[in-house]
This record gives sequence, structure tokens and C-alpha cells, in this order.
Amino acid sequence: MVLTADRTSRTEVQTVHIDLGERSYPIVIGAGLLAAPDSWSGLPRAGTAVVVSNVTVAPLYMARVKQALAVHYGRVLEVVLPDGEAHKDWVHLNRVFDELLAQACDRRTVLFALGGGVIGDLTGFAAACYMRGVPFVQIPTTLLAQVDSSVGGKTAVNHPLGKNMIGAFYQPVKVLCDLDVLRSLPEREFSAGLAEVIKYGPIADAGFLDWIEANLPALMARDPVALAHAVRRSCEIKAWVVGQDERESGLRAILNFGHTFGHAIEAGLGYGQWLHGEAVGCGMVLAAELSHRLGLMPADFVVRLRDLIERAGLPVCAPDLGLAKYMELMRVDKKAEDGEIRFVVIESLGRAGMRPAPDALVADVIAAHLA
Amino acid sequence: MVLTADRTSRTEVQTVHIDLGERSYPIVIGAGLLAAPDSWSGLPRAGTAVVVSNVTVAPLYMARVKQALAVHYGRVLEVVLPDGEAHKDWVHLNRVFDELLAQACDRRTVLFALGGGVIGDLTGFAAACYMRGVPFVQIPTTLLAQVDSSVGGKTAVNHPLGKNMIGAFYQPVKVLCDLDVLRSLPEREFSAGLAEVIKYGPIADAGFLDWIEANLPALMARDPVALAHAVRRSCEIKAWVVGQDERESGLRAILNFGHTFGHAIEAGLGYGQWLHGEAVGCGMVLAAELSHRLGLMPADFVVRLRDLIERAGLPVCAPDLGLAKYMELMRVDKKAEDGEIRFVVIESLGRAGMRPAPDALVADVIAAHLA
Repeated sequence: MVLTADRTSRTEVQTVHIDLGERSYPIVIGAGLLAAPDSWSGLPRAGTAVVVSNVTVAPLYMARVKQALAVHYGRVLEVVLPDGEAHKDWVHLNRVFDELLAQACDRRTVLFALGGGVIGDLTGFAAACYMRGVPFVQIPTTLLAQVDSSVGGKTAVNHPLGKNMIGAFYQPVKVLCDLDVLRSLPEREFSAGLAEVIKYGPIADAGFLDWIEANLPALMARDPVALAHAVRRSCEIKAWVVGQDERESGLRAILNFGHTFGHAIEAGLGYGQWLHGEAVGCGMVLAAELSHRLGLMPADFVVRLRDLIERAGLPVCAPDLGLAKYMELMRVDKKAEDGEIRFVVIESLGRAGMRPAPDALVADVIAAHLA
Repeated sequence: MVLTADRTSRTEVQTVHIDLGERSYPIVIGAGLLAAPDSWSGLPRAGTAVVVSNVTVAPLYMARVKQALAVHYGRVLEVVLPDGEAHKDWVHLNRVFDELLAQACDRRTVLFALGGGVIGDLTGFAAACYMRGVPFVQIPTTLLAQVDSSVGGKTAVNHPLGKNMIGAFYQPVKVLCDLDVLRSLPEREFSAGLAEVIKYGPIADAGFLDWIEANLPALMARDPVALAHAVRRSCEIKAWVVGQDERESGLRAILNFGHTFGHAIEAGLGYGQWLHGEAVGCGMVLAAELSHRLGLMPADFVVRLRDLIERAGLPVCAPDLGLAKYMELMRVDKKAEDGEIRFVVIESLGRAGMRPAPDALVADVIAAHLA
């Protein structure tokens, strides 16, 4: 899919301000940002910039980013890692440290994360730890990273015994969401990103759910005007939630709507079989069904959400892992307490909460949506 | 050396409050703290406590600490690492993560650092990163760690290309400085700790320098009353400096009095030849001489400080690395800017500042104190 320059030029640059006191930062959203000189203004001054990317994204955008940065930094270095979640580990984090130290990068060095969630999480954590903290800028190149990783300050690498187990809360100094880079995203990954966009409707903004339903064709055609609104509103909602709960003690859990079922699907099938967003899409159908069976939402809400998720190109039927396996996988969820599984449910359109649910009811919910 | 119970009982428990808003914490100083039930009150509640120590300290104090913690935590686990700076690396940090994850420790788990600076730095960094941050308690078992690592929130591991290059600013929830544990410290390590105690006088408190001179025999006899005062005043001074500059942008550099010369000595002889405190002791003599040659301090200040450092059992003559080597090593110091070496100097008794100095003058300073 190629968008004409004319359509691109119709999007204005929008900014969402993430207000965290001293650690506040702007998320800049627009088409053609990588090529626009303004995008690169107001960054921390330093002698050296280091762009961290992966072998898939670097051939597409590294040259453009380095060229833009060369105007502001005496030295622009790059670290290109292999692509994929399997490489979000200490070994590859250390590759960044090795390069920074080999090149004598000082504590003013600015890191740039050019890639999806994996590159963002790893680079953010590298920035958090290098000389006890250097500034970093996020340039998310997937829809999922633009609407999810842009806000919240979660950085991490995986450990063989658990995902995201080693990390830090560390905020970027700026996030650049260039909508044009989403054109290079494969259909399946784009749909996976839409799952997280859709999520923000039922948990926080009924009007946004209406808007997504009406504008799904434009979004799927990657219309930059529609994308700009979807990314901006998603970031605003996440910022509102995170702003009230930066360290994830309570409210922030509602961002995990669909994720308890989704994580079980991902883990049960083996990570990588379904994309995270696909599992979350299907998980939201199950969580909607659960909300209905708990007497919180009418049956037509389940139908409505399932239809939207299906139209977005996402799976809506749960893989048959066996009910016992589902229950076992959900009991190790980080939200579980003393073995009781707690689910994010929709209490009314635009409002979510946490509820425990009897095993038998959860089993019925899964059974009702098996593939 | 064995202190009688009678002398020990004369020290009252003292507390220095480190005021950092939400991240404030107490440093509790006294004799017999490990055995006192009160020491362990007010800690974060959790199911699991994990004590990290090394093979030298664990046989002496691990059982006592675990016994005390068993009253408050359902599970008390231990991780015992090899002793020494060479093991303050990612491999051993990962040993802590491996154990935490293998034992399914959740994000409320409390870590306890039982050891000197290496254990404190590594455990603090593990706490900063595990599940993006769990609480930790410091139980420093060396004089150096009690008067230095207790305050400032610096945690880190080493990288093959540099010391303390990977780390975080992360505050403990409590520090327990048991003066009795200092009895098991070898003479040489005790003297090394005294170097940092002495340092606080010239940089911040002329009266404290007088007090140290008068009480050095009691300190070296490890009299708990004298030690209590030395540890408390050192922590207070460091807290005052750090409180004005938590992230080390300016004033905090004065804590590095003697360290620019000291680091050169450590690196030039090969790390481990001289203890850090020994190099700092000698470095302070050189920095005092430099302060004199810059016209800031009279010659008798140099004599006075050198005599005190010598009485504390520390080296006062610089090893002959060759002047060129000294200059080269000091130019890579973190305080260097654009290749110009900047030194912490004493401007008047109790007040320090940062100054550049001509190479020829620095060479004269070193030459005047060669072994």
C-alpha cells in the first residue's frame, strides 16, 4: 500500500504531553516526522547520539534517522540487533553497553530506540542503566509500540524464567510517532496493533469505541488522518491511566483488559505462534463474555466487540488448550493473588474494574468461544 | 580485638534520616543491632526475604540475620556470592535474578545486602531491576560501606571496560550499621574505611577533622562510642551533600576529594594492589598539596592531613608510576571535561571546590610526595 504525498500532507503534527513533573515528555504524532527537521529539535545536547535498531527496521529507516541526527550531534553511532522477542535479553543489552563503552560514550550520550516494542524496551533499559542513566528518545515503528510502549516508562529485558522480569521504570525525553513508517508494517502486525487501540474504547472511552467502529476501514487502509487520531487518543487514554498510577499499584491494571486470557493463549500455544496483539484480541472477546456472565454487561456488547475485533483481522475464537491448561496458565499471571485469578472486566462502556471469577464460570466463558 | 559487653552497651542507637521525599529512609547506627529485635521492625511486609552476601561475611553473620528475619517473613532465602570486586559483574547479578525467579519471588520480595560495598552495590542494582524494582535493606559490614555506600543511592555492577558503568540510582528502605560487625574487619580494611571518614572533615566540617584527630586512638581501637559518632557524622555530611545534588551534577563531586589521584594510583598499580581507601588516603595528601600550591591552603594543612592519614595506618607516599602515566590515567577520570583534568581542592578548612590545574603544577605535586 502506498499513500500519496497529498493524503499524507493532510495530517497535522499533534503532540500529547505526558505530565510527570521533571520527567515530563512530549509524544509527537504525524506523517513524515522522520524527514521533518522540527522533529529533531529540543533534544538533549550531547556529543554523541546512538541509534539502536534491528536488522528488519534498520535497512528501511536507519539512514534517514542518522542523517537527521548528524545535524545535531558530532557523532552518530548505530547498534543493529537481530529482530525478535527472543533477542530481548541480557546478551543483546550488553551489546549496546559494549558499543557505548568501546566508543567512550559519556553520560550525556543520547540513545534513540528505532523499532518496535522489543527495541524500545531494550534500549530504554540500556538508557536507564548506562552510567546510571542517560537520556533516550523513542521512535516506535509499529502501531503496537506507538499506542502502547510510548506511554508508561516500562523498560525491560526477558530472563529465561520470565518475560520482562529485569527492567526499570524509565521515561524517554521524547517519542516520535511517524505514521508513515506504519506503511512498511506487515498486515498481521498492523492488526495486532489495532487490538491495543480497540482496547482503549471499552476500558476508558465509549465514544472512542464508536469512532473506531466507524473508522476501521480508514485505519486498515492506513489513512494518516485516521491513524493520527487513533494513536493520539490511545496515548491520551494510556497517559490518563498511567498518570494516576505510575508504578502499577492499582488502576493501571485495567490496561490489561483481555491480557489474562491473552497471556494464557500466548504461553499455551508457545510464544510466537500468535502475536501478542492477536492473543489480546481474542482475550478481549473472552473478557467481554466474562463481563456479561458476571452480570455487568449485556450480551450484545460481546457481539459488538467480537465483530469489531474480527473486522480488524484478529482471531476471535480461543485455541483449544484444554480448560485445565487455561486455568493453570492464568493462575501464574502477575495479577493473581494467593492463587485467585483476577480479571479485568468491563463494568459499563468506558469503565473497567478488577474482579475475581469462579473457575466454573471462567471455564464456561472459554468453552463458549472455542475454535 | 574483643570489646566487652559493658563498653558496647554504652552506645545508644542513633538514627540519621535521609530525606528524599517518598524515597526517604533511616540509617540506624549502633552496637549489637543485628541481635536487637527493634532493628528489624518497620520493614516492608512481604512473604519472602532474600539475603545476599559473600563467602567471607556469610559464615559470620548470615545465620543471625536469617534468624531475625524469620520472625517477619514466611520464607528467608540466601544467595552467597564469591568475595571481591572482580565478581561485581553481570554474571553474579544474574545469579541473584536466577535464584529470585527459581524461587518464584514476587514483586514485594525484600532484598537484604549483607556485606561491604560490592555486595551493597550489586544487591541494590538487583533490587532496582528485579520486576522493575523491589525494596532493599542495606546491612553494611565494612566501615567504608557504612560511611560511604549508606548514603547516595548509587548501585552498579562493573563492565569489562569500566567500573560501575552499569547501574541505577536506587535508594534502600533502611540501612543498619551495626558497629559490632566492624570488629571482624581486618586492620587494613578498617584503615581504608577511615580514609573516607577523614575525608569528610576537610571538605565539609573543620570541627569533625579536629574530633577525628583527637579520637583516632579510640576509633582504631574500634570503640563503639567513637565509631558511632564517626559513622553518624560521616553519613550526615554525605547526606547533606547528596541531598543538594541527588543525581551528581555538581556539588556531589566534592565527595571525590582525593579520588582523582586515588583512582590513578589504583588503576596504575592494577586494581586490588592498594585498597580503594588506601589510594584515597594517599590521594588526599596529593590533593591537599595541590590546594596549597594553588594558593588556597597553607603548607601546615598538608602536614596536618598527611600526619592524620599516616596515623590512620594509610600510605601517604605516591607510588612511582611515572608522571606521564599519572597524567594519562587522570585524563580519563569521569570528572575530566574535554581532556582537562579537574580536581577537588580544599578552599578553606571545611569547604571544597573544583579546579582545573596546569599539568606542570600537578606533576610537581606528585613529585613532592613520591615514595
